Amino acid sequence: MDEQQNHEKFMRMAIRLSEQNIEQGLGGPFGAVIVKDGMVVAGSANKVVPQKDPTAHAEIAAIRLACKELNTHNLQGCVIYTSCEPCPMCLGAIYWAHLDKMYYANTKEDAAAIQFDDHFIYEDIGRPLAKRRLPAMQLLREEAQIAFRKWNSTDLNIRY
Amino acid sequence: MDEQQNHEKFMRMAIRLSEQNIEQGLGGPFGAVIVKDGMVVAGSANKVVPQKDPTAHAEIAAIRLACKELNTHNLQGCVIYTSCEPCPMCLGAIYWAHLDKMYYANTKEDAAAIQFDDHFIYEDIGRPLAKRRLPAMQLLREEAQIAFRKWNSTDLNIRY
Repeated sequence: MDEQQNHEKFMRMAIRLSEQNIEQGLGGPFGAVIVKDGMVVAGSANKVVPQKDPTAHAEIAAIRLACKELNTHNLQGCVIYTSCEPCPMCLGAIYWAHLDKMYYANTKEDAAAIQFDDHFIYEDIGRPLAKRRLPAMQLLREEAQIAFRKWNSTDLNIRY
Repeated sequence: MDEQQNHEKFMRMAIRLSEQNIEQGLGGPFGAVIVKDGMVVAGSANKVVPQKDPTAHAEIAAIRLACKELNTHNLQGCVIYTSCEPCPMCLGAIYWAHLDKMYYANTKEDAAAIQFDDHFIYEDIGRPLAKRRLPAMQLLREEAQIAFRKWNSTDLNIRY
C-alpha cells in the first residue's frame, strides 16, 4: 500500500466514525483518528452530548484518548485525521498536543452549511477583548501576578 | 457583600488555585472557577502534566467539572473567573460551553512574559490553512460529505 493509500485508509476511519455517530444517534457527524508510525493510536467521534462535555469534539476526544494510550501529554510524532477542519478550540488543542500534521476532509465552510458554524469564534478570537461577543472584565491583576513571579523563581520548569 | 466584592472573592479563589498548583509542584500557575447564581460550581488549576492531558488547561478542566456537577453540556447562566486570559483553545471552549461572562486577572502578555506564549496560536488561527505553522492537507472531501448530507436529513437535530 503506498503512502497516499495509507492516508486515505486512516481518513476513511475518521469518516466512518462521523457516520456511525449519526447512525447511533449520538451526535454530530464528526470523527478523528490519531496515528503514530503508521499505526492507529486512538479515534473518536464527537461526544459532546453523550458525555455532556462541550469540549468533547472529535479531535479533543481523540487527543485525550491518544495521550492515555501513549501515557504522555505530548503527541509529537503523531498525526491527526479529522473528517472536518477543526474549530479554534480543537486547532488550539492540536498545537498544545504538538501533533506533527493534520489531514482534514470537510472544510469549516461545509460545517457552516449544515449549521455547525464556528465562524463567529474564528472572527472573535482575532478581535481585541473589548470588541468580542463574550463580555470580559479584568480583575485583581496585581494579586494574580504573585503566582506568575513565583513560577519564574521555581525550578518547576515544565513546558507544555 | 456588594457585587464587586463578590467578583473579587471568586477571582481570589481562581488565583489561589494558581498558587497552589506551583506550591504542590503540579504545573503552571493557572486557576479557574465557575460560578452560577453566586455559588461556586467547580474550580481547577492547570492539570496538563498530572493528568497527562494537553487539553487540561484550568479553564477546560473547570468547564468539564462544572458540566459534570450540573449534568449538562451547556453552562448558560454561569460565569468563569480565570487567573489568566485564556488561550484560543480555552476561549473556544468558553464559547462552546455558552458561559455568560469571563473575568480574568493576568493578561496573555503576562503569560508570554513567563514563557507561556500562546501568541503564535492566536496569530496562526487568523491565517488561511496553507499559511499556518501546522502542516495541513485535505483528503476525501467527497466521501466525508456523505455524513454531512445524512445529518441534514435526520431529525437528530442537536445543537451544541
